[in-house]
Amino acid sequence: MALRHYTLDFKLSTAVDSATTVPDLLSIFHEQEMTETAHETNGHGYLGTFVGKNGRLAILRVHSHALVTIDLQCYEEDNIAQLDNLLNALETKLKVILNGNITRIKRLPALVRGAEVDRYWPTADGRLVEYDMDQIVYEEDSAYQNIKILHSQQYGNVLILDNDLNLAESDLAYTQAIMGSGRENYAGKEVLILGGGDGGILSEMVKQKPKMITMLDISFKVIDACKKYMRGTCGNILDNLKGDCYQILVEDCVPVLKKYVQEGKTFDYVINDLTAIPISTQPEEDSTWEFLRLILDLSIKVLHPSGKYFTQGNAETLTEALSLYEEQLGKLSCPVAFSKEVTCVPSYLEQWVFYSVWKK
Amino acid sequence: MALRHYTLDFKLSTAVDSATTVPDLLSIFHEQEMTETAHETNGHGYLGTFVGKNGRLAILRVHSHALVTIDLQCYEEDNIAQLDNLLNALETKLKVILNGNITRIKRLPALVRGAEVDRYWPTADGRLVEYDMDQIVYEEDSAYQNIKILHSQQYGNVLILDNDLNLAESDLAYTQAIMGSGRENYAGKEVLILGGGDGGILSEMVKQKPKMITMLDISFKVIDACKKYMRGTCGNILDNLKGDCYQILVEDCVPVLKKYVQEGKTFDYVINDLTAIPISTQPEEDSTWEFLRLILDLSIKVLHPSGKYFTQGNAETLTEALSLYEEQLGKLSCPVAFSKEVTCVPSYLEQWVFYSVWKK
Repeated sequence: MALRHYTLDFKLSTAVDSATTVPDLLSIFHEQEMTETAHETNGHGYLGTFVGKNGRLAILRVHSHALVTIDLQCYEEDNIAQLDNLLNALETKLKVILNGNITRIKRLPALVRGAEVDRYWPTADGRLVEYDMDQIVYEEDSAYQNIKILHSQQYGNVLILDNDLNLAESDLAYTQAIMGSGRENYAGKEVLILGGGDGGILSEMVKQKPKMITMLDISFKVIDACKKYMRGTCGNILDNLKGDCYQILVEDCVPVLKKYVQEGKTFDYVINDLTAIPISTQPEEDSTWEFLRLILDLSIKVLHPSGKYFTQGNAETLTEALSLYEEQLGKLSCPVAFSKEVTCVPSYLEQWVFYSVWKK
Repeated sequence: MALRHYTLDFKLSTAVDSATTVPDLLSIFHEQEMTETAHETNGHGYLGTFVGKNGRLAILRVHSHALVTIDLQCYEEDNIAQLDNLLNALETKLKVILNGNITRIKRLPALVRGAEVDRYWPTADGRLVEYDMDQIVYEEDSAYQNIKILHSQQYGNVLILDNDLNLAESDLAYTQAIMGSGRENYAGKEVLILGGGDGGILSEMVKQKPKMITMLDISFKVIDACKKYMRGTCGNILDNLKGDCYQILVEDCVPVLKKYVQEGKTFDYVINDLTAIPISTQPEEDSTWEFLRLILDLSIKVLHPSGKYFTQGNAETLTEALSLYEEQLGKLSCPVAFSKEVTCVPSYLEQWVFYSVWKK
């Protein structure tokens, strides 16, 4: 049973004395049969906690600076209309008490804590965002990661790997961006996809009749789950691991890439759909950066001299991580140039950077 | 001074006894010199509040069902690293205590309450979302509404009217969608824009050399603010209220529309950029629905028989409000047909519906 957590905040122009604000509010809590405990705050204003029936808890703080905050926790099964009325009563009373002194009133949508379906998937740049997920479609642990597919009303099914939102059925924009935003002609070309287990790139790419697409993804479980539940992304392309112009190899891409390098095999396009750029900005200490450099170096090695390498970056606002990635591009054994563009991927709730890299 | 509010929740497979969980946690709070008050909850588990120095407050609840929740409030100027350590210590300890019984651990980005720049602008469908706004660029009250322009790192400047996020400089997708998504040819056409004070539609439309665009917006203050601070949207088009192929009339559109009807004046395109569809689903009792019907009826009356009417709808998930709007379309004095499409407008953080309407 989830806990609903309401907040109601009054930002003021000048601090108020709790003696003039609190007494009028107490009667509202008393009407709801909530028992007050006033706490000693050592000069940080009034802090009262109010415990009621059915597990209800309210916290009223008249801070010593110009702010009044109210928290209200209740269980999901509680009488929500009654709680709304309580908040309305507090808001109305405070508007009267603080009249002329209010800079902002903020009453946010309730935070729902401990719900069956988790709706909070913070952005890569660390912001709190609530989604409209309403159903767990699939959840399993593979040898590599936790795999979840949740249903969202507006984004369709959403693939979440290790609690990181990967792709939703609504996100054709992602696939188009990592394929070069419609500027490339894949007809007759040799293409290598690293990762891509959701099948989005493969599904779009075969429409262009390349000579051969090789997709390397380590996780059969991801492929299998997406085949079943992400058909808005992959269509029927994952129904077979082999087709006229494609093959899916369920393998770790590193040894395969090393083998290609040894054999001197090259590709017209390498699309790295493995993972976003690590957010950590200490590349020396972070093994994900090391992995990224390894993949990048091997990929450029198997890239035809006139070929192109596409990959996602990360959130546009993570400028340090992106700069660091661009620094890595300057340190490859083979000199490369790059361009980047920013795309709006519907389910990401933040602007996302994509890179194109080619040999100088 | 803002209040940072952290939450840390453990969802469990089976309920736990507070006697086995709480004592081990108390020492962590005591180390931080936080004073415990245990509250009587009438069978709803353990509820302890902990008040510390610098205005710190923690709440620990071991609910009588399978959930443990922790809240931690501190001031912005507090030692954030120390608070992080406290949460880390609690999380680590709880992982040990609850080992084998944990379904989900959720530690959300801190809610920042009472900050100078408000970053929480819930979606139309009522979800809690945090933006990356970092600066108040403009704020003023007009006779009609509160006008705010905030700066966002990724969306540029964002226009907010009466606390409703209208448009960001990143949102060309909105303008393109409400102009018919590139399927229309405005060259040589007569166009009427209702609202549109941000100048986005006007700025895009003049590029297509229509015969004449008439824009009716009631608020000079909005136009003037956008001219200065939303240039990523309007370019230089608002620098003059009149140009080769456009005129901006700063007027209430209703009497002007009525005058056009009387004169028998018609337009090839009417673009209603006034407001989203009301969310309320009791149209009889809601004056915004009445206003919407009035505008719609007048707009269709001034529409050339082969003309098109474009407007925004609302969030894709507000299916009831959208259905109700479609019902209204069926009740107009002149019979119309319509189509709709869903667009991802970058700053909206939800899929948005746009309508095309034409006379049958």
